[in-house]
Amino acid sequence: MTEEKEVKFYDKKISRRQMLKYTGAGAAGVALGASGLGSLMSVFGMAMPDDDERATNKINFYGAHQSGIATDVPTHVYFASLNVVVTSLKELQDLFKTWTPLTVRLMNGEPIGDSSTNGYVPAKDTGEAKGLDASNLTITFGVGPSLFDKPGLGLAHKRPKELTDLPHFPKDQLDPTYTGGDICIQACADDPQVAFHAVRNLIRAASGKVTMKWSQAGFNSYPMKKSKKQTPRNLFAFKDGTVNVNTKSKTDMNEVVWVQPGETASWMTGGTYLVARRIQMHLETWDRTALGEQEATFGRHRDTGAPIGLHQENDDLGLERKDASGQPTIPADSHARLARESGERMLRRSFSYSSGVIDATGTYDAGLLFISFQKHPKQFIKIQNSFGRVDKLNEYITHRGSAMFACFPGIQKGSYIGEALFKSL
Amino acid sequence: MTEEKEVKFYDKKISRRQMLKYTGAGAAGVALGASGLGSLMSVFGMAMPDDDERATNKINFYGAHQSGIATDVPTHVYFASLNVVVTSLKELQDLFKTWTPLTVRLMNGEPIGDSSTNGYVPAKDTGEAKGLDASNLTITFGVGPSLFDKPGLGLAHKRPKELTDLPHFPKDQLDPTYTGGDICIQACADDPQVAFHAVRNLIRAASGKVTMKWSQAGFNSYPMKKSKKQTPRNLFAFKDGTVNVNTKSKTDMNEVVWVQPGETASWMTGGTYLVARRIQMHLETWDRTALGEQEATFGRHRDTGAPIGLHQENDDLGLERKDASGQPTIPADSHARLARESGERMLRRSFSYSSGVIDATGTYDAGLLFISFQKHPKQFIKIQNSFGRVDKLNEYITHRGSAMFACFPGIQKGSYIGEALFKSL
Repeated sequence: MTEEKEVKFYDKKISRRQMLKYTGAGAAGVALGASGLGSLMSVFGMAMPDDDERATNKINFYGAHQSGIATDVPTHVYFASLNVVVTSLKELQDLFKTWTPLTVRLMNGEPIGDSSTNGYVPAKDTGEAKGLDASNLTITFGVGPSLFDKPGLGLAHKRPKELTDLPHFPKDQLDPTYTGGDICIQACADDPQVAFHAVRNLIRAASGKVTMKWSQAGFNSYPMKKSKKQTPRNLFAFKDGTVNVNTKSKTDMNEVVWVQPGETASWMTGGTYLVARRIQMHLETWDRTALGEQEATFGRHRDTGAPIGLHQENDDLGLERKDASGQPTIPADSHARLARESGERMLRRSFSYSSGVIDATGTYDAGLLFISFQKHPKQFIKIQNSFGRVDKLNEYITHRGSAMFACFPGIQKGSYIGEALFKSL
Repeated sequence: MTEEKEVKFYDKKISRRQMLKYTGAGAAGVALGASGLGSLMSVFGMAMPDDDERATNKINFYGAHQSGIATDVPTHVYFASLNVVVTSLKELQDLFKTWTPLTVRLMNGEPIGDSSTNGYVPAKDTGEAKGLDASNLTITFGVGPSLFDKPGLGLAHKRPKELTDLPHFPKDQLDPTYTGGDICIQACADDPQVAFHAVRNLIRAASGKVTMKWSQAGFNSYPMKKSKKQTPRNLFAFKDGTVNVNTKSKTDMNEVVWVQPGETASWMTGGTYLVARRIQMHLETWDRTALGEQEATFGRHRDTGAPIGLHQENDDLGLERKDASGQPTIPADSHARLARESGERMLRRSFSYSSGVIDATGTYDAGLLFISFQKHPKQFIKIQNSFGRVDKLNEYITHRGSAMFACFPGIQKGSYIGEALFKSL
């Protein structure tokens, strides 16, 4: 229709000509210098199109690490756990080779193949994301311990010894329906349809090679302050993500998240371990609990997210503090204290879910799709064991699903997802 | 902190002073007349703060009709179907009286009660929407046929004769888990947490008076063109909402949606009937189907949404058109033709859902939470019967849930939800 090149401001498309029209002198009473436009736009929380990535809501697929880990957390996730039905290593390798260019296209906001309305064959792309932009889509791949035991693949000797099913934790009530899997695909995006479309098209391209074991959609809602995303609240209304690993700090990430050379199997260097837990939150019980009791459970104030007795979300917990009666201000059985006392860290990257009603009980099927990344599963295990039977939060939650995946390192141009593993064979 | 009055542009807050700073002459090279600012902002899809409602993402609760029906469809829904456990009419009436001011607060983006961090009692509001704005939240209430049969309520004689369970349709495979209910609450918003929070707090305020029967979250993703929302695509990738009732046309709405005086029970004047159907879409089967076959199924092109052989989404179907071999261009068994040939109309207001995997089959639990509004259930029934066993779409979908609710007329200040019904007793 028009040959104007389009410039994209977040989800608003305007052409360069329109932009000039509205920003150039003389048009409709507007005279606006470039710096002025920037200031005006930044007030509205819009980015100037200073680079392609921001301007088109695209995240870069290539790099030292996979996307969807250090990447800022968008508002939606569709997480899928798959079983493989391939019987040879070659088929498995081909699967990841097939997925690589498709993932690039999806993250660019493009369909995975050309579409035609004169189709005597199925369309290459399922099409429901047509017209939607890339929406900061990230796609993260991992492999579960069970993949290494598949007969015929010859992968057993390549399994890092720490890649096993998680141990049973006190209070676990795992449902096989939401547990395990050979491969995971985590699709995060600022649009639920874009995330779903990504997983659907990857699974479709793997027809006959994988089956779906379980999946879960989730969301995060961000309060905004001065155009800046604030820590989101989980369904217990507490801020979730305070005192997290700083994803912008290379030191932090290398220390906590990214596997360093020599730390485990060489193919995992630059990779990380993903733990997924489907945690049901008993909202009805929680909602009958006094606010003070809720705050004692977390060790934090609900409103501000500050440690009990303090005022700022990022104030140090101050575990040594005591109340008038000599009791610890941050209770001994509180979630925040137990997490801190574990001495371990991990990158949390969770989403809330609301999946209807549990028919048998008439209660919400809602809670947290907990996702964490760590360079060694023991980090998660140590923290979870610190909660153990002590954590006051246990009264209000039940872990219903669990899975662990080894996430490959990042992919370079010309390479493919998982190449490090296959090359090591 | 500051006494500046805040003006809100969608989800961005700026103070009037900031606004003047950025729009007044001389500041940071910006000189922008009011009309120029309006033009610039409209390019970015922003509304000028010409009225409070748009500026704060608030929808008005009060009016001749309930919100969430003629209101523009936002991106998320949380739909809940409840059973009542009250045993007297007074209790039921009190329930709606309780809900009324809470609904007003929720739609204003306010918590339903004051919060305190020194709480020896449960907080009045569950809190997970704190910091989020109203997000165009609408809350729509309806009552199902079963409510009128509850012993002790004495409502039987007030049931409009058309308010009954829907008849069995060919191919229905209804699951009681997603069927029926005494009361529905439809919460629509541009944020999934805001919608969920609304339903949760209303149910919580009704503790001991209602139980949850079923619920379903859903979404719509809007392609944008020139800052204007385009028709969203369902998970079959076809545009869903073409040739819908024009919600801006009073004539259309009065003809199709709003019950007129004398048309049925007087308490329903200004109200409407809501039909909800949880329609599973067999994505795996669909995705193996040739595009031409998919288009023949709908009678429309996937890409443009235009009737087969035409180019624009809003082109008339042209049912009389024939192809070279003398066959109807819009196939006799296509969904669009059968809908049109029913001669009936209804307001469709549906959402997609993706609720994980069906364990028994390993297929997606995904599809459409179909919601329609009509002044008489026969409109939906006639269209659905027109599809009957003929509709080619039947091969790809299964209706798994069904419910019908009579939605009260709108609420005036000083009145309460459902007053028309209770006053008529």
